[in-house]
Amino acid sequence: MVYIYDTTLRDGAQTRGISFSLEDKLRITEALDELGIHYIEGGWPGSNPKDLAYFEEVKKLNLKNSKIVAFSSTKRKGVKVEKDSNIQQLVKTEVPAVTVFGKSWDLHATLGLGISLEENLELIFETVSYLKKYFDEVFFDAEHFFDGYKSNPEYAIKTLLAAKEGGADCLVLCDTNGGTLWYETEEIIDTVLKKVKAPIGIHAHNDSDMAVVNSLIAVKKGAIQVQGTINGLGERTGNANLCSIIPNLVLKMGIKSIPEENLKKLYSVSRLVSELSNRPHPVNLPYVGENAFAHKAGVHVSAVEKNPKLYEHIEPEKVGNKRKIMVSELSGRSNIISKAKELGVELSKDSPAVKEILDKIKNLEAQGYHFEGAEGSFELLLKESLGLTKKYFELKGFRVLTEKRSENEEAYAEATIKVEIPKEIAEEKGIEDRFEHTAAEGRGPVEALDKALRKALEKFYPSIGEIKLTDYKVRILNEAAGTEASPRVLIESTDGKRKWGTVGVSPNIIEASWLALADAIKYKLMKDDEDTDRGGSSEG
Amino acid sequence: MVYIYDTTLRDGAQTRGISFSLEDKLRITEALDELGIHYIEGGWPGSNPKDLAYFEEVKKLNLKNSKIVAFSSTKRKGVKVEKDSNIQQLVKTEVPAVTVFGKSWDLHATLGLGISLEENLELIFETVSYLKKYFDEVFFDAEHFFDGYKSNPEYAIKTLLAAKEGGADCLVLCDTNGGTLWYETEEIIDTVLKKVKAPIGIHAHNDSDMAVVNSLIAVKKGAIQVQGTINGLGERTGNANLCSIIPNLVLKMGIKSIPEENLKKLYSVSRLVSELSNRPHPVNLPYVGENAFAHKAGVHVSAVEKNPKLYEHIEPEKVGNKRKIMVSELSGRSNIISKAKELGVELSKDSPAVKEILDKIKNLEAQGYHFEGAEGSFELLLKESLGLTKKYFELKGFRVLTEKRSENEEAYAEATIKVEIPKEIAEEKGIEDRFEHTAAEGRGPVEALDKALRKALEKFYPSIGEIKLTDYKVRILNEAAGTEASPRVLIESTDGKRKWGTVGVSPNIIEASWLALADAIKYKLMKDDEDTDRGGSSEG
Repeated sequence: MVYIYDTTLRDGAQTRGISFSLEDKLRITEALDELGIHYIEGGWPGSNPKDLAYFEEVKKLNLKNSKIVAFSSTKRKGVKVEKDSNIQQLVKTEVPAVTVFGKSWDLHATLGLGISLEENLELIFETVSYLKKYFDEVFFDAEHFFDGYKSNPEYAIKTLLAAKEGGADCLVLCDTNGGTLWYETEEIIDTVLKKVKAPIGIHAHNDSDMAVVNSLIAVKKGAIQVQGTINGLGERTGNANLCSIIPNLVLKMGIKSIPEENLKKLYSVSRLVSELSNRPHPVNLPYVGENAFAHKAGVHVSAVEKNPKLYEHIEPEKVGNKRKIMVSELSGRSNIISKAKELGVELSKDSPAVKEILDKIKNLEAQGYHFEGAEGSFELLLKESLGLTKKYFELKGFRVLTEKRSENEEAYAEATIKVEIPKEIAEEKGIEDRFEHTAAEGRGPVEALDKALRKALEKFYPSIGEIKLTDYKVRILNEAAGTEASPRVLIESTDGKRKWGTVGVSPNIIEASWLALADAIKYKLMKDDEDTDRGGSSEG
Repeated sequence: MVYIYDTTLRDGAQTRGISFSLEDKLRITEALDELGIHYIEGGWPGSNPKDLAYFEEVKKLNLKNSKIVAFSSTKRKGVKVEKDSNIQQLVKTEVPAVTVFGKSWDLHATLGLGISLEENLELIFETVSYLKKYFDEVFFDAEHFFDGYKSNPEYAIKTLLAAKEGGADCLVLCDTNGGTLWYETEEIIDTVLKKVKAPIGIHAHNDSDMAVVNSLIAVKKGAIQVQGTINGLGERTGNANLCSIIPNLVLKMGIKSIPEENLKKLYSVSRLVSELSNRPHPVNLPYVGENAFAHKAGVHVSAVEKNPKLYEHIEPEKVGNKRKIMVSELSGRSNIISKAKELGVELSKDSPAVKEILDKIKNLEAQGYHFEGAEGSFELLLKESLGLTKKYFELKGFRVLTEKRSENEEAYAEATIKVEIPKEIAEEKGIEDRFEHTAAEGRGPVEALDKALRKALEKFYPSIGEIKLTDYKVRILNEAAGTEASPRVLIESTDGKRKWGTVGVSPNIIEASWLALADAIKYKLMKDDEDTDRGGSSEG
């Protein structure tokens, strides 16, 4: 059994330009748990308040698979372990497992920490043995192990033995500088396994483009724990990419680890982490990249579908990804038809509506629309094109004023809005006055507009009160156009029964938000009507 | 001697979304030649007119190191080789070397090409031997070799022997589907070398994140040619990344290939290709990424300054890259001091100012501020804290109105702003009226505000006209707070002399943009004054 240990939230968070909020970290934790990750290293509680807060909040999550791990350095020199603040923060977290890192490279102990080699061993032993009193599992990260081994092999081994003596449940060999080539890894691990009889793990970095193979080599030689991050996030060139490691281990090497079934979630976990890192999802990532299974023209749809094995090293669905055939109008249509079917709408391949919808979508996508995560907007587009939904309201205008009176006063916003509902709906509802003009305030312009819109429409459609906006994302497309760039706003809403995403694109960010907000409301009203037509509500 | 064979212009050009113009290809060719690449596969002349034109134009270049290679499929079935148009196009190119690819997987020959296994061998032999009459060097790419070997090892070997019989100068084993794991590569190449006495090469794809190690394994076993692309461009997950392979081979494995001196050009070749691919340069690329030598966590920075070998696997300068130190919530004092030093400010470790600045930063970061990519805001914060810069202007208020008149009309925005400059500056400049109240319009509110702000300040500081905003990013923090979430705006500006990033955070997106825009302007004014104080301008 090989345990997957994810350090996206700790080592991954050290990636330049990335800063996970507390909510981000909790969302990622839940996604990793669903994937079946065995250990989630949540942070270093002693290092900053956000990490500390994580360990409090994570206790409220209902995790089914993952054990949360807290991370720290070994105790500081000259301080008793029970007085060391880092160590005490660890103890307070009350997590199932902790990991401490210690120096395995003699130079790091002497030059870096300014302690003797002997002191370093004691410090490792004392820290680990102390923590064993409080935690079921204590892991030791042997920092710079491979360079340390190359510099002073006996000493590097001694650091492992010190941790082992202390009771460490796994000794993790770290290629901290990422400079170790695969054949060096093979030789070094062979020796380690001869001299140290204890469970070992691997923590590789990608500075030589070797992190994945170094990790798999360790496993092949008997390592029981692999540390890495989603998408290979991490300092410099990143940690070992679990999105490559897990499928290689499970689907190719046949090693018992995360259940094969769970791998279907890999793609979405990978996308989530990219979203929350506010980075475009790298298209060429093995297994989980948008292009991982995108075949060039010339490989005909029929050929690849008849014999996928001739062109694909694995079935994309096994990791939750999809095959893409590029430059083919036929494949475009089949995507639409297939998606429409999922939504309960039967379309025939030759139906002109299909071409119309396809053109609309390509047009919108050229402007920056992106329907992944915005299935609500897609469904609206589909059903509006097919005349399967009604027009619920018409915008007659909005104005949003943002004011900031001085440097020291906070900005605030006021929105006014005019909407009108169609005659037929007014008659149905027995409403005389189909027009509403109202206002609302907020800290920011989007908040003010959202409130005004709901206020205006709730008069006609009380069920709107059930909608709660759970996610609001902005992505600036063509960022190089500066303030003239086009924002894409992605909104996620829920009404308790279902969750849906909607999107809006415009060079005007308020307008982009408006489009996504309006879609969110139309979607709710459309679904409620579908439920009524079907005679009763349906589950999300 | 291991020859590096670059296929950026052919296999790399098959990357989804990439299209090199003829000029792009010629520029890349010259850069690769300067780097010392041995073979440059320029294209498939039979496949499209742009590739054909390349082979004409490339003759006019004065190349010192690289041989140009033309690429094609083997001759078609049922056509005499001297009549095959692809082959004839090859002959016309008059390049020093050609490469033809043929099927090494039995199924691809029978199902794919619809020919018998015997015919396939003949086709390979005929094509290669024909081309040997015209070209000094003919290389054979054994397509799908590894999968072909796993499916029918004898046949795969036969295809190599057929090419060898034809006189091929190198038999290149291609992992076309990219599914081969490193230990399979080892076993298969061992057998090939026993059964086929001829020079072999390797052409790997990265679908299992194995392309680099597979290539290096082949070399270690005796391959004399490595095919790959700059930055790992290529279909799906890309070809083997030469920017990882070359430094590993030359700097680490000590293998004779491209001269070590030339590697200093690697970084700039890598950047050039990204630019011409119109893609952002991936920051985490080994060796050549912006982050490859960027240190973040406070624990590492103090150590790296003392002794770079403690944290860097090679000297960045060897590949033309540079070390970077970053600022973040994980910063210790040493990060602050080190960054201040870069900015020309000497701070002592125990100086109270350091703690004050560190606290300010941690505080701001808890609110969502993020100084990576916003070095301008960081420098302002530092110098304002230390009294090293003046107050250039004060906001006396702004109002931004966004209006959308109906569903069909586009939204637009108008901003009004009031600013005032300090008495001392007005006196210095001989300006009487220190106050300005003006307005501007834009498609969106941030554009309108930006224009209004510049308009207002340009009156006092004409140099503001030099500022161009080159990047505008928005990140919504705590997205789950919906429209009450806090946007973080990151702006990049340039004035031709330098580039700088600034940041603003607020629940009000207009205010967040305001903060980043105001910082961008303050930064410019501060730097201009510093230049003047120093007596002359400085380079970016």
